[in-house]
Amino acid sequence: MPANPLTAYELTDLRERHSVKWREYPSDVLPMWVAEMDTPLAEPVAEALTRAVGRGDTGYAAAGRLPEAFADFAADRYGWRTEPDAMRLVPDVMSGIKEVLEIVSAPGDQVVVNTPGYPPFFYWLERIGRKVVRNPLACGPDGYRIDLDLLERDFAAGARAYLLCSPHNPTGRVFTRDELLAVADLADRYDVRIVADEIHAPLTHPGARHVPFASLDAPAAARSIVLASASKAWNLAGLKAALAVPGPDARADVALIHEEVSESAGLFGVIASEAAFTHGRPWLADLLAGLDANRRLLGDLLKAHLPGVGHHPPQATYLAWLDCRALGLGDDPAETFLRHGRVALSPGPNFGPAGHGFARLNFGTSPDRVTEAVRRMAAALEAADPR
Amino acid sequence: MPANPLTAYELTDLRERHSVKWREYPSDVLPMWVAEMDTPLAEPVAEALTRAVGRGDTGYAAAGRLPEAFADFAADRYGWRTEPDAMRLVPDVMSGIKEVLEIVSAPGDQVVVNTPGYPPFFYWLERIGRKVVRNPLACGPDGYRIDLDLLERDFAAGARAYLLCSPHNPTGRVFTRDELLAVADLADRYDVRIVADEIHAPLTHPGARHVPFASLDAPAAARSIVLASASKAWNLAGLKAALAVPGPDARADVALIHEEVSESAGLFGVIASEAAFTHGRPWLADLLAGLDANRRLLGDLLKAHLPGVGHHPPQATYLAWLDCRALGLGDDPAETFLRHGRVALSPGPNFGPAGHGFARLNFGTSPDRVTEAVRRMAAALEAADPR
Ligand SMILES: Cc1ncc(COP(=O)(O)O)c(C=O)c1O
Ligand SMILES: Cc1ncc(COP(=O)(O)O)c(C=O)c1O
Repeated sequence: MPANPLTAYELTDLRERHSVKWREYPSDVLPMWVAEMDTPLAEPVAEALTRAVGRGDTGYAAAGRLPEAFADFAADRYGWRTEPDAMRLVPDVMSGIKEVLEIVSAPGDQVVVNTPGYPPFFYWLERIGRKVVRNPLACGPDGYRIDLDLLERDFAAGARAYLLCSPHNPTGRVFTRDELLAVADLADRYDVRIVADEIHAPLTHPGARHVPFASLDAPAAARSIVLASASKAWNLAGLKAALAVPGPDARADVALIHEEVSESAGLFGVIASEAAFTHGRPWLADLLAGLDANRRLLGDLLKAHLPGVGHHPPQATYLAWLDCRALGLGDDPAETFLRHGRVALSPGPNFGPAGHGFARLNFGTSPDRVTEAVRRMAAALEAADPR
Repeated sequence: MPANPLTAYELTDLRERHSVKWREYPSDVLPMWVAEMDTPLAEPVAEALTRAVGRGDTGYAAAGRLPEAFADFAADRYGWRTEPDAMRLVPDVMSGIKEVLEIVSAPGDQVVVNTPGYPPFFYWLERIGRKVVRNPLACGPDGYRIDLDLLERDFAAGARAYLLCSPHNPTGRVFTRDELLAVADLADRYDVRIVADEIHAPLTHPGARHVPFASLDAPAAARSIVLASASKAWNLAGLKAALAVPGPDARADVALIHEEVSESAGLFGVIASEAAFTHGRPWLADLLAGLDANRRLLGDLLKAHLPGVGHHPPQATYLAWLDCRALGLGDDPAETFLRHGRVALSPGPNFGPAGHGFARLNFGTSPDRVTEAVRRMAAALEAADPR
């Protein structure tokens, strides 16, 4: 049986961490919020970083062989052929999105973002003076999907770009090739540029298949720009490296990302990501087995202890988007879970109005802690509303 | 005799590095350009990072105890009393400057920057829509100084802020208390906000004394904001952490730095910087001894082998600003040194028009390599213009 990276650490180990997940709340709170996992580093990543510490290799970042490492990974995993020389190093996916949107759109331009959506999208797009057009995903019995009619309406109303989060945080949806082709078709019709945040792509679970937007056979795909990173799958968010990867007709745009931006990336992020893409695939397979087990466990636990919570098992990521509207906990159920259950989830309203009554749970931890989290949530519900 | 961190590595060790200093040029070029040093990490820093690798502590950054660590360092070293709770974590000094200027000034506002000046200042200030007012330093027989008349002229012409680089890159000047008080006085008179980049402060050499701008007794100092970091002195630029430190009357401004900005810092930067400020002072003393010896060596070597180069030994930093105008190498002497000598310096023109005919040499390396660099420069001069 392969080792499960999710069970390597005890709570006492994790409480030694300096990361925000473990430092934000007092020690009686079980943190199940921000998108970091409770795993050790993949061995090849830890070794590469240890060597870097030993050689004092802590100066300014250069992309080095990271683009080649990602190109190999993308070819192997998605059958996506990319051009390493056309990629640009950026400090993280969020800043890459900002840089790219500053290149493909102008101040005041409308940028479509699906809701619920990753909260920093809203903050940073406003910081760069873009007008965020909130486009709600549709939710049916099989979970969330892009509402193509609504998308067309927003494209027709003058959108300049569409920030597509694929796979989607917080819903965990992996969009199908047909859905993405339909998006490309609309983008071509209305001359909308696609910027695809594919940070969660390596975390796609069995049963779904991630299709890189720029790999599609459509003009809008050739003109699209993908943001890719090892930071979610190998848990490297604090080391600061990501890549802007252009479709074949977007190379000139990505080339405009200034070298000052690339040099403000983290060198350890580059070193760790290169090791992850090149030598970290066995570890990723072990992780995905553990996450797949956790998502089933979570589904069972919710059914047993919190039957009022609506939930579609995610097709990717270690994030579960919980519909708590039937619980009567108001707009921000995470508040009740924290106060009465001492378990920290991400508040749904941060993801936009579509998140009212929702909370996001991070199950990138041991099955024991997933179980304890649901126990605490159920206890909180009991305490808040003893029926 | 204390160990000299500058002599720890051979060239073959350094060529293993991934940082931009060692990856930008082919291997026959001796890199003496970007501000990274060729030192190992201070032992307490290496230990802290090794522990972080071991616990997989690579999630999103939180400031943790870094503000307290800096406050202790600043009190001990400069007698500067600061308020840790008022500080904000930022990814690096440059992004901290951007954030702070976006808070204390508006688009289109004039921001004064001395020239020669750190090149990214010009790029990033334009990116955020500020109008850069280039204010040349005066240069007399004792080296560079702030020209208070010119500064007053620029303040009177409507400057909203002054980005003061103190100690100054590239000239290595450590401004005196009297000079800084005169600046504060002018800032008060013309209502100009001071943003002080003090990244090089821990690298002040014997004979000079760094005065934190916000520690001065003047209203403009109380309203000033200092950017501080361990990244130059302990060579941590690639790990991505710095602090915005407000004077007593600038706390509300610094509090406006958004938590999204702090969370985009590098966690290893936080961990390493806290260890450096707390436990890295003996290492810093050894480093400064080595740098002081190098700056004397460089002075002697230039006198002997390149007598036409004008040079004032820096009072801080490991950067030497070389006046090559008498050599007849045109605006960019670094180009000749690189082409004919295979030694990479930073081109003077990057530092603004005041840098035409200049080059910056980084002596944060072994005395052998400093010697070799000057030998290569002299050979280049010979090759370019055999007299
Ligand atoms: C969809 C999505 N995009 C971007 C990010 C942030 O990535 P980075 O830390 O590389 O900016 C996250 C983090 O969770 C995310 O879920
Ligand atoms: C004066 C000055 N400010 C800022 C920086 C950049 O610092 P950071 O890497 O923290 O942005 C440097 C780097 O050499 C510098 O010399």
